[in-house]
This record gives sequence, structure tokens and C-alpha cells, in this order.
Amino acid sequence: MPVEKISSLQNPRLKELVRLRDRRPRDEAGVFLIEGYREIRRALEKQVKLQELYFAPDWFLGENEPALIEQARAAGAQLFELTKEAFAKVAYRERPDGLLAVAPQWSRTLADLVLPAVPFLLVVEAIEKPGNLGTILRSADAAGCHAVIVCDPVTDLFNPNVVRASTGVLFSVPCVVGDSAGVLAWLHGKKIRTVATTPAAATVYSTADLRGPLALVMGSEQYGLSEFWLKNADLPVRIPMAGQADSLNVAMAAIIALFEAVRQRSL
Amino acid sequence: MPVEKISSLQNPRLKELVRLRDRRPRDEAGVFLIEGYREIRRALEKQVKLQELYFAPDWFLGENEPALIEQARAAGAQLFELTKEAFAKVAYRERPDGLLAVAPQWSRTLADLVLPAVPFLLVVEAIEKPGNLGTILRSADAAGCHAVIVCDPVTDLFNPNVVRASTGVLFSVPCVVGDSAGVLAWLHGKKIRTVATTPAAATVYSTADLRGPLALVMGSEQYGLSEFWLKNADLPVRIPMAGQADSLNVAMAAIIALFEAVRQRSL
Repeated sequence: MPVEKISSLQNPRLKELVRLRDRRPRDEAGVFLIEGYREIRRALEKQVKLQELYFAPDWFLGENEPALIEQARAAGAQLFELTKEAFAKVAYRERPDGLLAVAPQWSRTLADLVLPAVPFLLVVEAIEKPGNLGTILRSADAAGCHAVIVCDPVTDLFNPNVVRASTGVLFSVPCVVGDSAGVLAWLHGKKIRTVATTPAAATVYSTADLRGPLALVMGSEQYGLSEFWLKNADLPVRIPMAGQADSLNVAMAAIIALFEAVRQRSL
Repeated sequence: MPVEKISSLQNPRLKELVRLRDRRPRDEAGVFLIEGYREIRRALEKQVKLQELYFAPDWFLGENEPALIEQARAAGAQLFELTKEAFAKVAYRERPDGLLAVAPQWSRTLADLVLPAVPFLLVVEAIEKPGNLGTILRSADAAGCHAVIVCDPVTDLFNPNVVRASTGVLFSVPCVVGDSAGVLAWLHGKKIRTVATTPAAATVYSTADLRGPLALVMGSEQYGLSEFWLKNADLPVRIPMAGQADSLNVAMAAIIALFEAVRQRSL
């Protein structure tokens, strides 16, 4: 398949790429954007099926881009070579590296999750900022969580800034989206204990038993956990904080709780 | 003192404010920028002496701005009222809230630090990204560190993005800048144990004793700790990681190590 060249800033494909930054057109088209060498390489490693790859050699930062492009082509991606100006129009990063891919969205349900005998899950509720959701995915990956369950999502998993902030973890850690009631029922059915972090809890997180089948539950940035999880979680815990009341954001609280669980589970 | 009004985009004060985003003019003038309601409020709470306060009612998000402006005036700040367009020129945030202050830089040395009998310090080396340094300051605040020591800084403490990412913690946690050799000698003199995180260490961080006089030492984003600290730290430790090799960045590693120290020190 020949490489199509795009230099006109009026090319409809460029307009479509810009439109895909927004959720509605993204969901309607059932695709999403992956920008950057590292992220595209990881997508290919994890068998994400790239439909289209847009590249602009004028923006390349290294020597390895042609090999990556060849890999994408071999995996079935349609290739487009852009001029520097054309790529500047479609890049959503401040410092583009000349690589932007389009891939199909996927959807996983709770029923799709394959879990080990002693599952270790992270449940996050209504996270608003894509950057926080991406960072939380990285933390869950580093902690070895078997899955991340996103309840009642405000930001969608395929937001370009989630893809970016997750540094490609989105392609490796299983992520499932669900409503809180359905997720709780599923966790109960699997006999997975829910430990929810909230500043109002009496128990300090590190004194709670975080071994065994576990789902850590974290609330949204602005409102914390909903009444639903506060009422229904098996154990509320808090992270003691010195200093300013808002020094820990949800992504920081998540990593603290996750790594305490890792510590206890390795004892 | 009357409020000076600025509407001309050519006003030299506006140009100077834009210049202060860069380190050199900032250091030469010996001042720095504080943008945003929350940050300015915290600066005032911590007795940071604002020299100038620029405000643009067209950008205000709430009702409390006039009281804050009055507080700044009472504390000696010179006031400037800007048109919407004039403020847009000087704001460095994407979503300005109509408040920008200029305050004098300060410099603290190791000799200025007043420490308790059992100090708990964070030492960071050559952090490159202002956002990471700001997040690290927040983490140190939340963990109750007595001071943060920044060795051989690449980004300066007064970078607008450090101020922003620290959400004002820069005004409360004592931060000292120094060279690595001087900092190590000072720590030795105070009999403060140095525990350095590095992926190559044999000891897992959570199995190390993190009680007693302690300085946790973290390296830079790209290069990790320098040979100097790897050779001279009392104990190297590592944070075990599942998943992708780069899932934890330096700010995430710092918060994990800090809160494990908090846990042990509270036992």
C-alpha cells in the first residue's frame, strides 16, 4: 500500500484528526488517538490494531521512527506522510515528535476480566481530570493490580490526555468501565473485599489488613467518594496527612494506598 | 495608595511580568510570580511580602477576590487593575483567574534550618521538571517533612510551574538549595542517616528501617541518582515495581518512600 502524502492544511483527514480530540466524535467514530513514539510503540507491543499512522519526518526526534512506521505498516496500518505544518495542525502535544496513530476503541466488561485466585483491584469513581486518570493507571500498573475499574466515568479512557499520562499503560492494564451499583454487586459475587479511602474514616490505611482479595476504592478529585461507596464499602480507611489539607490529590492518595497493599501482600 | 489602571498592551509593566517567567530576568530582579487565588492567599497566610498585585475583575471566578486584594494592599502590595486583554497577556495559566502577584525571592541556607531532635528530610537531586518539583514539595508537606533540600538544581524553586504545582507549599515547607557535597557533609555533621532510592539496590525500601534521623534521597527524572549519592548514601533501597519499567516517575517514587517512612515512624 503506497504512502499517501498530505500537505494541504485543508485536507479533510486533518480536520477529522482534530475532531477526534473531543469525546463525541471520538465515540461516534469508535476510534481514538495515540500520539508519540513511546505510546505508539507500546500500542504495537500490546497488539493494538492501528488503523492509520500519520508521520512527519520534520518532527522526528530520533533514529528509530522509520522502523516503527514499518512495524505499523506490517501490522496493517494505513500510512500518511505529513509536512511539518500539516502535522503541527493535528498534534495535540506541545512538543510533537511527528507520530500520531488512530486505533479502534475497545470495550471490556466485568465479565471479560480474568482474575487470579487472590485479586488485587483498583476501583476509581468519577475521576474528572484525564491526567489524574492516566497517572492512576500508571500507579496501578507499577503496583501490579490485575485490573482497574472506572465507575461512573466523567472522563473517558480514550481521552488523548489519559493515553498520554498513562504512558501506554492503557494498553496493558485491563480497564473496565461500569456503574457503581453493578461493580459493587460483581465484587460481592467474587467475595472481593472493598477498602475505600476517605478523610473521615477512623482507621488509618496502613493499620488495615490489605491482603487477600482486595479492591481499593478511590473517589473523585473534587467530591471524594460518593455516599454509595461510603455506605457500602467493607472498610473505610484514611491516609493521615500533615501540612495543607489539600496536599494529596487523588492520584497521590491512590499510589500511597496501592503500595501499602503491595507491601503487606509481599510479607 | 491609589490603584493604577493598565489597559495598554504596550505598558512596560506587562512586558516585565512576561519576562519574569524566565529564570534569568527573574533572578536578576530577585522576584518571582505567584498566579492564582489559592496560591496568593497561601502566600499572604505565610507572610510572603507581595510587592505588586495585578488583578482583572473580568477574569474573577468567585466572590472572594476583593477581600484578598484588600488583604494584599493592607500588607503593603502595590495594586494594578488590568483590562481583560491586558491580563490575558501576563497570565501564564491556561485558565487565568485574574490574580497575579510579584514577590521577592528568598534564599535559605542549611544553617537557617531549625530542626527537631529527630529530623525527617527529603533530599532531591537535579530535578528537571518544575511540575515534578512542585508535586514533590506537596508530598513532603503531606508527609510532614521538616525540610526539602534541593541539590544541584536544574529547575529553580521560583519557576512559575513549581509555584503552581506546589499549590503554595513552597511558602510553608522550608526548602534549601545546596550542592551535593555540602549537603552530605551537613547531614553527616547532624548524624542524619541517608537512604537513597535507586532501582539497582538490593534492599526493598519497606524492609529498611526508616525511623530515626532520616534523609530520603531521590535522583533526577532522567538519570536517577548521581554516582556521588549512590556511593555516599548510607543505604540504597529500591521500590519493587510490576508492569512497565518506567511506570513510576520520581514524584511517584518520592511519595511512596515518604509515606512508608511516615508509617514506620508512627508505629
